[in-house]
Amino acid sequence: MSKFDKVIKNGTIVTASDTYKGDLGIKDGIIAEIGQNLECDTVIDAAGKLIIPGGIDAHTHLDMPFGGTFSSDDFESGSKAAAIGGTTSFIDYSIQPAGGTLADAVKIWKEKGAKSCVDYGLHVAITKADENALAEIPTMVKEGITSFKVFMVYDAMRVNDAAFMNILEKSKEHGALVGVHCENYHVINHRTKQLLEAGKTEPKYHAVSRPATCEGEAANRAITLAKLTNAPLYIVHNSCEESISRVKEAREAGLPIMGETCPQYVMLSEDNYDEPGFNGAKYVMSPPLRSKKNWDYIWQQLKDGVIQTVATDHCPFFMKQKELGKDDFTKIPNGGPGIETRMAIMLSEGPKHGLSLNKVVEVTSTNVAKIFGMYPKKGTIAVGSDADLVLYDANKEVTITKDVLHENVDYTAFEGVKVSGYPVMTLSRGDVVAKDGEYIGESNRGQFIKRGKSIVL
Amino acid sequence: MSKFDKVIKNGTIVTASDTYKGDLGIKDGIIAEIGQNLECDTVIDAAGKLIIPGGIDAHTHLDMPFGGTFSSDDFESGSKAAAIGGTTSFIDYSIQPAGGTLADAVKIWKEKGAKSCVDYGLHVAITKADENALAEIPTMVKEGITSFKVFMVYDAMRVNDAAFMNILEKSKEHGALVGVHCENYHVINHRTKQLLEAGKTEPKYHAVSRPATCEGEAANRAITLAKLTNAPLYIVHNSCEESISRVKEAREAGLPIMGETCPQYVMLSEDNYDEPGFNGAKYVMSPPLRSKKNWDYIWQQLKDGVIQTVATDHCPFFMKQKELGKDDFTKIPNGGPGIETRMAIMLSEGPKHGLSLNKVVEVTSTNVAKIFGMYPKKGTIAVGSDADLVLYDANKEVTITKDVLHENVDYTAFEGVKVSGYPVMTLSRGDVVAKDGEYIGESNRGQFIKRGKSIVL
Amino acid sequence: MSKFDKVIKNGTIVTASDTYKGDLGIKDGIIAEIGQNLECDTVIDAAGKLIIPGGIDAHTHLDMPFGGTFSSDDFESGSKAAAIGGTTSFIDYSIQPAGGTLADAVKIWKEKGAKSCVDYGLHVAITKADENALAEIPTMVKEGITSFKVFMVYDAMRVNDAAFMNILEKSKEHGALVGVHCENYHVINHRTKQLLEAGKTEPKYHAVSRPATCEGEAANRAITLAKLTNAPLYIVHNSCEESISRVKEAREAGLPIMGETCPQYVMLSEDNYDEPGFNGAKYVMSPPLRSKKNWDYIWQQLKDGVIQTVATDHCPFFMKQKELGKDDFTKIPNGGPGIETRMAIMLSEGPKHGLSLNKVVEVTSTNVAKIFGMYPKKGTIAVGSDADLVLYDANKEVTITKDVLHENVDYTAFEGVKVSGYPVMTLSRGDVVAKDGEYIGESNRGQFIKRGKSIVL
Amino acid sequence: MSKFDKVIKNGTIVTASDTYKGDLGIKDGIIAEIGQNLECDTVIDAAGKLIIPGGIDAHTHLDMPFGGTFSSDDFESGSKAAAIGGTTSFIDYSIQPAGGTLADAVKIWKEKGAKSCVDYGLHVAITKADENALAEIPTMVKEGITSFKVFMVYDAMRVNDAAFMNILEKSKEHGALVGVHCENYHVINHRTKQLLEAGKTEPKYHAVSRPATCEGEAANRAITLAKLTNAPLYIVHNSCEESISRVKEAREAGLPIMGETCPQYVMLSEDNYDEPGFNGAKYVMSPPLRSKKNWDYIWQQLKDGVIQTVATDHCPFFMKQKELGKDDFTKIPNGGPGIETRMAIMLSEGPKHGLSLNKVVEVTSTNVAKIFGMYPKKGTIAVGSDADLVLYDANKEVTITKDVLHENVDYTAFEGVKVSGYPVMTLSRGDVVAKDGEYIGESNRGQFIKRGKSIVL
Repeated sequence: MSKFDKVIKNGTIVTASDTYKGDLGIKDGIIAEIGQNLECDTVIDAAGKLIIPGGIDAHTHLDMPFGGTFSSDDFESGSKAAAIGGTTSFIDYSIQPAGGTLADAVKIWKEKGAKSCVDYGLHVAITKADENALAEIPTMVKEGITSFKVFMVYDAMRVNDAAFMNILEKSKEHGALVGVHCENYHVINHRTKQLLEAGKTEPKYHAVSRPATCEGEAANRAITLAKLTNAPLYIVHNSCEESISRVKEAREAGLPIMGETCPQYVMLSEDNYDEPGFNGAKYVMSPPLRSKKNWDYIWQQLKDGVIQTVATDHCPFFMKQKELGKDDFTKIPNGGPGIETRMAIMLSEGPKHGLSLNKVVEVTSTNVAKIFGMYPKKGTIAVGSDADLVLYDANKEVTITKDVLHENVDYTAFEGVKVSGYPVMTLSRGDVVAKDGEYIGESNRGQFIKRGKSIVL
Repeated sequence: MSKFDKVIKNGTIVTASDTYKGDLGIKDGIIAEIGQNLECDTVIDAAGKLIIPGGIDAHTHLDMPFGGTFSSDDFESGSKAAAIGGTTSFIDYSIQPAGGTLADAVKIWKEKGAKSCVDYGLHVAITKADENALAEIPTMVKEGITSFKVFMVYDAMRVNDAAFMNILEKSKEHGALVGVHCENYHVINHRTKQLLEAGKTEPKYHAVSRPATCEGEAANRAITLAKLTNAPLYIVHNSCEESISRVKEAREAGLPIMGETCPQYVMLSEDNYDEPGFNGAKYVMSPPLRSKKNWDYIWQQLKDGVIQTVATDHCPFFMKQKELGKDDFTKIPNGGPGIETRMAIMLSEGPKHGLSLNKVVEVTSTNVAKIFGMYPKKGTIAVGSDADLVLYDANKEVTITKDVLHENVDYTAFEGVKVSGYPVMTLSRGDVVAKDGEYIGESNRGQFIKRGKSIVL
Repeated sequence: MSKFDKVIKNGTIVTASDTYKGDLGIKDGIIAEIGQNLECDTVIDAAGKLIIPGGIDAHTHLDMPFGGTFSSDDFESGSKAAAIGGTTSFIDYSIQPAGGTLADAVKIWKEKGAKSCVDYGLHVAITKADENALAEIPTMVKEGITSFKVFMVYDAMRVNDAAFMNILEKSKEHGALVGVHCENYHVINHRTKQLLEAGKTEPKYHAVSRPATCEGEAANRAITLAKLTNAPLYIVHNSCEESISRVKEAREAGLPIMGETCPQYVMLSEDNYDEPGFNGAKYVMSPPLRSKKNWDYIWQQLKDGVIQTVATDHCPFFMKQKELGKDDFTKIPNGGPGIETRMAIMLSEGPKHGLSLNKVVEVTSTNVAKIFGMYPKKGTIAVGSDADLVLYDANKEVTITKDVLHENVDYTAFEGVKVSGYPVMTLSRGDVVAKDGEYIGESNRGQFIKRGKSIVL
Repeated sequence: MSKFDKVIKNGTIVTASDTYKGDLGIKDGIIAEIGQNLECDTVIDAAGKLIIPGGIDAHTHLDMPFGGTFSSDDFESGSKAAAIGGTTSFIDYSIQPAGGTLADAVKIWKEKGAKSCVDYGLHVAITKADENALAEIPTMVKEGITSFKVFMVYDAMRVNDAAFMNILEKSKEHGALVGVHCENYHVINHRTKQLLEAGKTEPKYHAVSRPATCEGEAANRAITLAKLTNAPLYIVHNSCEESISRVKEAREAGLPIMGETCPQYVMLSEDNYDEPGFNGAKYVMSPPLRSKKNWDYIWQQLKDGVIQTVATDHCPFFMKQKELGKDDFTKIPNGGPGIETRMAIMLSEGPKHGLSLNKVVEVTSTNVAKIFGMYPKKGTIAVGSDADLVLYDANKEVTITKDVLHENVDYTAFEGVKVSGYPVMTLSRGDVVAKDGEYIGESNRGQFIKRGKSIVL
C-alpha cells in the first residue's frame, strides 16, 4: 500500500516566502510530506509548473439579494468558477436580514453554501447593531464565524459611527475581526440627488456620485473609530490612494489596520464607464472604478505590505439584471464578476509591477488565511496543511474573454486582458477538482470552514 | 483749525509686514495721514510704545444661551474687557433659534449687540439647514453677514454631512464663508455613555469624552466636504495636531482651507483638568484642552501660515453656573473667558515661539479682517482705515490674574501667566476707549460691522 | 515752499500685507508722508496704477568673469535695465579672486559698481575658506557686507563640507548670512565625463549632466551642515522639487533655512534645450531648467512661504560668447538675462497661480530687504523708507521680446511671454529714473548699500 | 539502511512565512524531506522547541586590522560563538589593502577563513576605486563574491561620490550588489578637530563627533548616487531615523534601496557612553549608539519591511586594545562584539515590538540569504536547502553576561539583558555543531560560500 494517496512530482513549490523544487505527498486530503523523489501509484507530474497554495478569496457575494434581484452566481456555479481559476476557498458575506438575527443570516447562507464545490467560510454583515446583535457575537465566534462587516453606506445596512464602535469593541473582546465598507453616505446622497435632478442617469454617473474623496474620508473615519476602541480593523475593497494613504498612515503609527484591494482597481478605470451604450453598467460596483493614476500607487502599496490582500468582491449580474437601472444608475445592481480571473491576473500582472511570485501568493492566499483565522490549514504549502493546491503554468498565454470563463454571467470586466501564465490544475483537499479549464470534481463537496482567531498582520 | 482731530506721535508702527517709526494723524475716526512730525492740538505721545492695529476676535459668544443659562459677559461687559485688552472688533456667533430663521438670529443678536462698546460683526450658526434657511443666505450676505457656521456636534445644532454640503454650496454661490466646529458627534456620544455608566462624572472626563482624534476625524471630513463642493472653509478653534495636520495637508494640495486656534490651546493643557475639587470645570470647553505636546506644533503652524488666525472662543460662565454640572460633566456649561487676555498673551508669547511681532499682528488682526470681509477698514494701520489702534508697552510686565481683568466672570483660565508687554491704550475709530487697564469710552458706542466678501488666505 | 519735493497721488499702494488708496509725499528721497489729498508743486498722477515697493534682486552677476569672458551687462547697462523693469536695488556677487582676499573681491566689485544707476549691495563668494578668509568676515560685516556665498560646485570656487561649516560658524558668530549654490560636484563630473566620451556635446546635455536629483542632494547636505552649526542658511536659485522639498522639511522642523527661486524655473523648462540649432545654449545656466512638473510645486511653495524670495541669477552672455561652447557644452558660459523682466513676470503670473499681489511684493522686495539687512530702508512703502517705488499699470498688456528690453544681450529667455501689467514708472530714492520703458535718470547715481543684520524669515 | 542520516522530530518549524509542526529528514547535509512521523536511527527530539533556519550574519569583521591592532575574534573563535548563538553563516568584510587588489583582499581573507567552523562568504570593500579595481569586479562575481562595499568615511578607505558611482555602475552591470557605510567624512573631521582642541577626549565624544544627522546626510547622498546610476544599494548598519527615513522615502518611490540595522541600535543608546571610567569605550563603534527615541522607530521599520536585515557589525576588541584611545577617543579601535547574541536578542525582543517570529526569521536569515545570493541553499527550511538549523527553546530564560558567551573578548555590550528563549542546538549542513551553549562540532569545517546574484527585496 502506498504511503500516499497521491504525489505531485517535479514541480517548483512557491509559498509566501520560499521557492524550491520538491515533491508533495498527499494523504487523506492533507499534505503529508514534502520531499525529493517521493513515490506513489498516483502521480501528477508538475514538471515545468509552479505549485502554489490554492487561492483564497476573502470577499464574495454569491446568490446575494440586491435591489430586488440576486447575484447570478450561486455557490455551485461560483465555486466551480473559483476552482477552475485557482481559488480553493472563499469567504462569503452573509447579511443580517431586516428584522432578523445574525444567526438567521448564517442559517440562510449555510443553506446556500451547501452547494459549494470548494471550502467556504462566512462573514456576517451586521445591519442593525442593537444589543441583541452584539450579544450574538460570542456565539458566532464559537461557531467559526470570526469576522463581521460594517457598511458605512446603503440605507438598509449602514450603521452609524457609535454603533460601529460598539461592534468594534464587542468583536475585539471576543477575538473577532471587523471589516468595513468605506464610503460617505451623505456625500453620495447629496451628489446623487443633484445628478438625478440634472437628468444625469447614465451608468457613468454612478462613479461621479461616489468620488474617491468620499472613500478616503470614510476610511479615515473608520480608522479613527478603530483607534479609539483599540480594535483591529480590515478595510475591504480599497480602490484608491485616498483611502489607502490613510491605511498607510495608520500602520506607520503602529495601528492594527489592514486593507484589501481587488484586481479591478489595478486593471480597470473610470474610463470604462465611457464604453458605448449601456456597457458602462458592467462596471457599476461600489466603490466604483477610479482614475488610472491609482494603479501604480496600489501596486506599490501591495509590494510594501500596506495592503495585505487581494480579493474580488465577486458579485455578478447579467446585463439583463443590470438593466433594472437603464433609466437611473442608482437602480443598477452593484457588482461584477471576478472570482475566476483573480489568480491568473495577479500572478501575471504582479511581477510586472515589482511583486515577486511569493508576494502574489502572500496577498492572494497566505495573508488571507492568517487574517481570517484559517491558517495553517489553508493558505500555504506545508506539512499538515490541507492539500489545496494549484498547478500554475507560467508559460501558458491566455487572453481572458467571456468564452474561456465559467462564471454564470454574460460578460467579464476583464475582456481582452492577456495574461502570461494560467492555472492548469486545482486540488481541493487533495482532490483534483479542476483541470485545463474544466471543473472535474464532485458536486456539493465543499465544506464550511470553521474559522479561528485572526492573526493581525 | 488743525488738520487732524488727534495725532499719535513718536511710536513704532507695527503692521502685518512692516515695522517703522511714524506719526499717525487721525480725522473723523479714520487714519488720515502717516508721517513724520505731524502736528495737532491733541497729541498722544507713543514714545517707547508700539502702535498696532486693534485686535479682532473672530470667535466670541457673548450673552449666549447654553444649557439653561447664559454666558456671563454681555456685549457691554464683554466689549469693554475686549477694549481694555487691545481688541477693537469682534465677531459674535448668532444662533438660528429652534424653529426660527436666520433673520431671527440676527434680530436677537443685534438687540444684544446694541450695548457693545466697540464694533462688532455677526456670524450666523445655521442649526436647521432646510430650504428656507438656505434661501436666506443671499439676504444675509447683503446685510453684511458673510459668514455662516456649522456645528458637527451638539444635538440641537448639528447638521449632517449632506446639509453641510448644501450650506457650503449656497454660501460659495453668494460669496460667503462657512466656518465649522469639528468634532465627531457619535464618538462623543459613545464615550460619554460609557463614562457616565461607569460613574465617571467629574469635569476631567469632559476631555476624555471628546478626544483629539475625534476632532481630527471631523476636520478631515469637513475638508472633504469643502473639497467636493469647491468651497472655501474656515475651521474654528483647532486645538491639536490631529486637526491641524489635516488643514496643512489640504493647504499643501492647494485647497482654500483656513484654520483658527485659540490661546488656551498653546498655553493650557489637559493637565489643568486635574486641578483640585471642581476647578477642572473652569476648563470645560469644546474642544477640550489637549496634551502639551501640541503646543510647539501649533506655534509652528502659526508661524508657517497653516493656521491663519487666533481667536478666543470667549464664552465665560461663573463657577456657580458651571456647578450645573457638579454631578455630571455633560451638564457643565461649555466655555471660558479670554477676550481680554488674547492680545497680551499672543504679543508676549509669540516672539518666544518664533513669531515676529508682525506675524502676531497678522494672526490677531489683519488676517481676521481679510478673511471676514472687514479689510482694509479694519485690520491694519493704513491711510483710510479706521483708527482702531492699540498702544502696546513691550516693557510692561504683568502677571495675569482675575484681579487685573474686567471680564464678567469669577476666574481666568490664564491665572498666573506672566506676560512681557501689555496694551496701555486702545482707540476705537479714533476714540480713546481704554487706558491703563480702565475702560474710559462712552457706552453703547460700538457699531455693527457690515462685512463684505472674504479674502481667502 | 512745498512740504514735499514730490507727491504721488491717487494710486493704490500695495505692500507685502496691505492694499489701500493713498498719496505719497516724498522729501529728500524719503517717503515723508502717506496721506490723502497731499499737495505739492510736483505731482505724479498714479490714478489707475498700483504703487509698489521697488523690486530688489538678490542675485545678479554683472560684469562677471566666467570661462574667459565677462557677463555682458555691466553695472551701468544692467542697472538701467533693472530700473526700467521695476527693480531699484540689487545685490551682486563679488567673488574672492584666486590667491586674493575677500577685501580684494569687494574692491574690484565696488569699482565695477561705481557705474550703477540704482542702489546695489554686494555678497562675497568665498572660494578659499582658509583662516585668513574667515578672519576677514567680521571686517566685511562692519563694512555692510553681511552675506557670504559658498559654491558646492565649480573647480575654482567650491569649498568642501568642512570648510562650509567653518564659514557657517564664523558668519553666524558675526551676524552674517551664508548663501549656497547647491549641486553635487562629483555627480556632475561623473556625468559630464560619460557624456563627452559619448560625443554628447550639444547644449541640451548641460541639463543631463546636472540632474535635479543632484541639486536635491546638495540642498539636503547644505541643510545638514547648517543644522549642525546652528546657523541660518539661504539656498540660492532653487530650481526643483528635489531641493525645495528639503527646504520645506527643514523649515517644518523649525530650522532657519531660507530659499530663493527664479522666474525661469516657473516659466521655462528643459524642453527649451530642444530648440533648433545652438539655441539651447540660451538656457545654459546652473542649475539648468527642469521638467515642467516643477512649476506648480514651486508656485505653491512661494505661496506657502517655503520659498521666500524670487531673484534672477541675471548673468547674460551674447550668443557669440555662448559659442565658446559650440563643440562642448561644458565651455558654454553659464547664465542668462532676467533682471529687467522679473517684476513684470511675477506680478502677472503670480496671481494666476494663487499668489496675491501682496505676496508678489513680499517675495520680490520686502523679504529680500529683510533677509539681506536692508529693511526698512528698502523693501516697503512706509514713512521713513527710501522712495524706491514702482508705478505698475495692471492693465498694460505686453509681449516680452528682445526688442522691448534693455539688457545688453541679444536675446531674452522669455521671448514671447505675454504679461498682463507692466511697470510704467520707477523712482529710486525719489528720482524718476525710468518711465514707459526708457531710462531717464542720471548716470552713476546708484549708491552702495551698507547692509545690516539679516532678519531670518 | 535508513533513508536519512538524521531526523529531527516533533518540532515546530518556523520560516519567514510559515509556522507548522513537522519532522525534518536530513541526508548528506541537506533537508531531504519534511513530513510527519519520519523515521531514522538518529533522531533529535525537538518536542517543545521551535526549529528555525540558521541565522545569517551579513556583517562581520573577524581578525580585522584596525588602528594598529586586530579584532579579537578570528574565524575560529568567532564562528564557534556564532554557531553557539544560532548563526550558521556569515559574510565577512575583506578589505582591499593599500596598494593591493581586490584579489589580494580575497586571498588574505580566505586564509583567515580557513579556520571557520561554519560556512562563510566574503564581501570586498573597495578602498581605491581605480580602473584596475573596477576591472576586477566581473572576476570577483564569477568567484562567488557578489557584493562590494564602499566607505564614505575613514581616510584610508573612503571613496568620493564619483568613484562610488563608478562602483555602482560596474557592479550593476555584473549583477553585484553594493553596500555602503554612510557617514559624512567632513562633518566628522570638523567636529573631531573642535572636540580635541577643546580637550574633549573621552569615549563619549566619539558619539558627539559623528551625529545622527551626518549619517542621514550620507544615506541620502548614497541613495541619490544609486538612483542616478539605476543601481540597487544596501545601506549597512543604519542606526537612526535620520538615515532610515531616507531609505523609506526611496523605497516608497520604488527605488531598489535596502537597509540593515543591528541589535545594538535597538537595545543600547548614547546613554551608555556615560558609564563610569573608560567603560564608554565598550560602545565606541561607528555609527555610534544613538538616542533611545530611535528604538521604536527602528522596530517599526523592521516590521514594515523598510529595513530588511539585522546584522551585527561584530568587531570585538579587548578593553586593553580599546585603551589605545585612553587619551584620545579617535584612537579607540571601533567596534564591539555581537555575533553570538544576535539571534537570542532578536527572537526575544522582536515579538515584544510587534514582529512575528516569522518576521524575525526573515530579517535574521531569509532576507539575508536572498539579498546576498545564497538562497535557497541558505536562509530557509525547505527541501533541498542546507540543513542549517537552530533548535530554539522559547521558554529558556537567560540573562546575557560575558560569562555565558564564547566570543573572544572580555565584555559584552549586552551585559544583563534578559532574553526569553535561547538557541539550544545548532546544525550546520546537518552536523550538530553546538548544543546547550557549547561548540561540539569539528574544527575548520566551515566552507566558503560561493554566492550568486542578489534578489532585490
